[in-house]
Amino acid sequence: RAYQGASTGTKIECEGWRQEAALRMLNNNLDPEVAEKPEELVVYGGTGSAARSWDAYDAIVEELRELPDDETLLVQSGKPVGRFRTHERAPRVLIANSNLVGKWDDWEHFHELEAEGKIMYGQMTAGSWAYIGTQGIIQGTYETLAALARAEYDETDLEGRIVVTGGLGGMGGAQPLAVTMNGGVCIAAEVDEERIDRRIETGYCQEKTDDLDEAIERAEEAAAAGESYSVGVHVNAADMLEAMLEREFVPDIVTDQTSAHDALEGYYPSGYTVAEADALRDEDPDRYVAESLDTMERHVQAILDLQDRGAVAFEYGNNIRGQVEDERGLETAFDFPGFVPAYIRPQFCEGRGPFRWAALSGDPEDIYRTDEAVLDLFPEKDSLRRWIDLAQDQVQFQGLPSRVCWLGYSTDDDGLTERARFALRINDLVREGEITAPIVVTRDHLDAGSVASPNRETEAMRDGTDAVADWPILNALLNCAAGADIVSVHDGGGVGIGNALHTNNHVVLDGTEQAAETAKRVFTTDPGMGVIRHADAGYEEALDTARESNVAIPMRDRGGD
Amino acid sequence: RAYQGASTGTKIECEGWRQEAALRMLNNNLDPEVAEKPEELVVYGGTGSAARSWDAYDAIVEELRELPDDETLLVQSGKPVGRFRTHERAPRVLIANSNLVGKWDDWEHFHELEAEGKIMYGQMTAGSWAYIGTQGIIQGTYETLAALARAEYDETDLEGRIVVTGGLGGMGGAQPLAVTMNGGVCIAAEVDEERIDRRIETGYCQEKTDDLDEAIERAEEAAAAGESYSVGVHVNAADMLEAMLEREFVPDIVTDQTSAHDALEGYYPSGYTVAEADALRDEDPDRYVAESLDTMERHVQAILDLQDRGAVAFEYGNNIRGQVEDERGLETAFDFPGFVPAYIRPQFCEGRGPFRWAALSGDPEDIYRTDEAVLDLFPEKDSLRRWIDLAQDQVQFQGLPSRVCWLGYSTDDDGLTERARFALRINDLVREGEITAPIVVTRDHLDAGSVASPNRETEAMRDGTDAVADWPILNALLNCAAGADIVSVHDGGGVGIGNALHTNNHVVLDGTEQAAETAKRVFTTDPGMGVIRHADAGYEEALDTARESNVAIPMRDRGGD
Ligand SMILES: NC(=O)c1ccc[n+]([C@@H]2O[C@H](COP(=O)([O-])OP(=O)(O)OC[C@H]3O[C@@H](n4cnc5c(N)ncnc54)[C@H](O)[C@@H]3O)[C@@H](O)[C@H]2O)c1
Ligand SMILES: NC(=O)c1ccc[n+]([C@@H]2O[C@H](COP(=O)([O-])OP(=O)(O)OC[C@H]3O[C@@H](n4cnc5c(N)ncnc54)[C@H](O)[C@@H]3O)[C@@H](O)[C@H]2O)c1
Repeated sequence: RAYQGASTGTKIECEGWRQEAALRMLNNNLDPEVAEKPEELVVYGGTGSAARSWDAYDAIVEELRELPDDETLLVQSGKPVGRFRTHERAPRVLIANSNLVGKWDDWEHFHELEAEGKIMYGQMTAGSWAYIGTQGIIQGTYETLAALARAEYDETDLEGRIVVTGGLGGMGGAQPLAVTMNGGVCIAAEVDEERIDRRIETGYCQEKTDDLDEAIERAEEAAAAGESYSVGVHVNAADMLEAMLEREFVPDIVTDQTSAHDALEGYYPSGYTVAEADALRDEDPDRYVAESLDTMERHVQAILDLQDRGAVAFEYGNNIRGQVEDERGLETAFDFPGFVPAYIRPQFCEGRGPFRWAALSGDPEDIYRTDEAVLDLFPEKDSLRRWIDLAQDQVQFQGLPSRVCWLGYSTDDDGLTERARFALRINDLVREGEITAPIVVTRDHLDAGSVASPNRETEAMRDGTDAVADWPILNALLNCAAGADIVSVHDGGGVGIGNALHTNNHVVLDGTEQAAETAKRVFTTDPGMGVIRHADAGYEEALDTARESNVAIPMRDRGGD
Repeated sequence: RAYQGASTGTKIECEGWRQEAALRMLNNNLDPEVAEKPEELVVYGGTGSAARSWDAYDAIVEELRELPDDETLLVQSGKPVGRFRTHERAPRVLIANSNLVGKWDDWEHFHELEAEGKIMYGQMTAGSWAYIGTQGIIQGTYETLAALARAEYDETDLEGRIVVTGGLGGMGGAQPLAVTMNGGVCIAAEVDEERIDRRIETGYCQEKTDDLDEAIERAEEAAAAGESYSVGVHVNAADMLEAMLEREFVPDIVTDQTSAHDALEGYYPSGYTVAEADALRDEDPDRYVAESLDTMERHVQAILDLQDRGAVAFEYGNNIRGQVEDERGLETAFDFPGFVPAYIRPQFCEGRGPFRWAALSGDPEDIYRTDEAVLDLFPEKDSLRRWIDLAQDQVQFQGLPSRVCWLGYSTDDDGLTERARFALRINDLVREGEITAPIVVTRDHLDAGSVASPNRETEAMRDGTDAVADWPILNALLNCAAGADIVSVHDGGGVGIGNALHTNNHVVLDGTEQAAETAKRVFTTDPGMGVIRHADAGYEEALDTARESNVAIPMRDRGGD
């Protein structure tokens, strides 16, 4: 079905901006510029979808159009299943996607239910209507690689470094750009040539080739010259890494963003073209999965071998280690770290995470005004300035104009967190008419206090509580209590069914006093959960943040533990 | 540590009654009259606890004492981990207990974390501070057996029928009384003699014996005479059933309420006294579990054999079938049904479920006034009248005086559900001073729309969605949005870690207008979730209820499905 994306401007179809924001964000998720396969309702990350079916989509749209200011719509795995009277300060939409009771919480049960239309894969921001295209992931990847440069080389960029990776899909497609933004060189394997072409069109990747030797040669030249460069190689990632090992080429950094979390729908086995593999998937899904896992095992082994020869290796959250450990018994699979404990957790301890906002007007100028506002509010943040400059220059808007940056908890003299301060500033600008229509603020599910994911965000927690899922549940309940406009809870996401529980929320800044109050609360509770979760696990950085920013930690505050 | 239970009367220690109610209900859970092992913080059902440690308990108490009307306390597996500013209409306490990410969601990981003090088993109403002693379960068992009498014999009671069961613990101890209340005869096996003595002291069970022949003889006499009778037999349940088979004694009904969901802490293997088994558990937990499962296998086989010989057999929610199927590969384990699909689901379809309330005054008269009120409100409900009469006569209050009955959704001319109508009536009585202090309303986690539990509450759902956990998550979020005073989400409960996800909520009826508004909302959203969940699964009874009581079902209302 053909699809147009969100409507824009200041005329609304719904009863209020909170509902309108939900509608526009849902539609924005399906904008052909934003979504990978909007005609199938697939937004990104394998089969991550915005609604269970077109009928369900239509019903959601109609419900949102009619939803009063004191009712709440319930969406169960992409299908609207109820609507109840709540009150004005309660969320307008509550979403639960892909959740299964623990013992049944695996792909097998999920796929059975999915085939019968009983459940939907919500991924992270797909089913929570918060995807904005590749900018979010560019920024995340940019931050991660910058943190890697600091941690591994004690440098501020990747100049002269070669990063090798795989997968140029909805998220992975951001890798070449994030590498070049950091001044480095990227070689990315991708089996689907159209995906490479798409990244080249949007300027995320510079060149493509079928010839690995050519790619390596150019990469080495660029790195030697200290120039940034990116190339997509039309090849299976596992095959490419093995070929590199054969040629004794060792990159500085090796990682991967194929959708390995889903052996059936996300990863291509070696020895097949895309078309052949797609046919095999239809005809013989069991064999597809088996071949897919065989290739993954070789893929992980090649990463380990490159690591042995000196490359910095890390998993970029696609659970390729978990797949190979579980399904192929490769005991060394976890011998290279995940990106979170390696580079992200110190930021989570401070409640720092991805703050993301979209202009409901559709007007890029509204985002530029927020860019100014954030730089004006936090003049001391150099990396923020660098990111905003690069983003304005190199990141094309997709669908509704939007922006992402990482902000933290640390409170000012009025007790306002960074995220709250910025949200209040935006709300003021909306009220004053400096911004032409409300701004909606949301985030990635990967955030300081929103996720339990033992192979990714909570890998190797200091106190061993990687798998404790009380935290994301409390996060969702608390953000609901704080009055976020949408609250969502998902199973799975990037690491696959049964491997993670995570949440999201939206706050609509429409310039009203109520929005200001909501923003103040939610942008304290939401990053605050990150601080208390990491404080509870014993991270000093989190305990420091709690002390400095007055986060209540009942047991500590009372001398306990 | 010695423990007193809840304080009573109209003087409060907290900032308001909503916080005071949380404090009193927590303390009531640990009242020695209510809890199984209050000195260890264990309330009922194996290790179901009210707080993670005494330090955590103390901190919760202090937090509740100081909690303002616009803040929310976070409790993570029995430990207070945070407190944030929310608003007056938000919950005062949010609780998440025992939750683990799917792949790690099993006893092994749970016990590892529990041993390190990182998690707590919340059972159902233990960790959500809503246990009231055995009345809740008496009522549930009474309702179930009454439904069984109707379904299996087309009669209104169990006169002349012999029910054989096992386990006289916190919940199972209600079985003899519930059977005699229905006019039947009960033979219950219990290895722990003290438990039998306790049930006899409180009048729940009439006699005890070590001699099975004697028990059978007396039971048969009573049944023949149409008299009600109950006897606790001091023996392992598996041994007793095998002995019955040997003697060719076939009861009318066979079930079980040992804590089979927990092979280590809840079930006693055959061949050991309680003391011997307790020692074995300490010395060699692996062997304990193995022996426990061996006995369970024999136990289930004996139930199946009795069923073959004509007994009505059903599982009473302790997951004994799941244990034996999973751990011993007994493929016929599920050949006898769970009590929910057999007797409870038709009620869930109508949003009917366990409504429970406690008098914070401590004054039994307050409960008698609510008894009058509920009979006055629903004069047409004969079974309700019978229950209230029997309860007043035969059920001793434990801790705070309290009452339980089942109420449904079906709305009146003002669009108020049964539960909402009754709550509003109570709130009026509090306001008018007819009741001397606020009443707190809560419920079992086993309710129409609050649980996903494939071996119990959602066993054999019509559309195969037994394991879909989006529903309880939406239930918790929605009740939070509706402003319930406590909202909780638990993994496990009676069927064990990884086998269920379920929620609870409390609403404090303090006579205020705000309480009335909250009650109106929550007692619509909460049972309403039961209606929409079962409507979505295709149950006609639920679709009828939705139509009759104006429950919005977006896809149906728009002609979809
Ligand atoms: N923050 C994070 O933790 C994070 C960030 C980004 C992506 N991820 C994970 O990375 C993965 C990719 O995400 P996405 O949204 O780009 O997925 P996607 O499904 O849109 O793209 C995957 C791409 O990989 C390609 N591919 C699959 N198998 C391949 C193979 N063997 N060799 C070469 N190419 C192959 C596919 O053709 C496709 O273009 C997911 O598992 C996602 O969860 C995690
Ligand atoms: N509504 C429901 O679905 C529902 C209701 C009640 C109980 N249950 C389940 O029933 C079980 C019992 O609950 P409880 O609160 O009474 O637990 P409990 O742990 O307090 O009591 C269990 C009792 O069983 C006895 N026991 C254990 N193994 C035995 C054996 N082999 N033979 C004889 N006696 C044995 C113990 O001594 C103990 O007294 C739990 O699994 C609970 O979840 C479910």
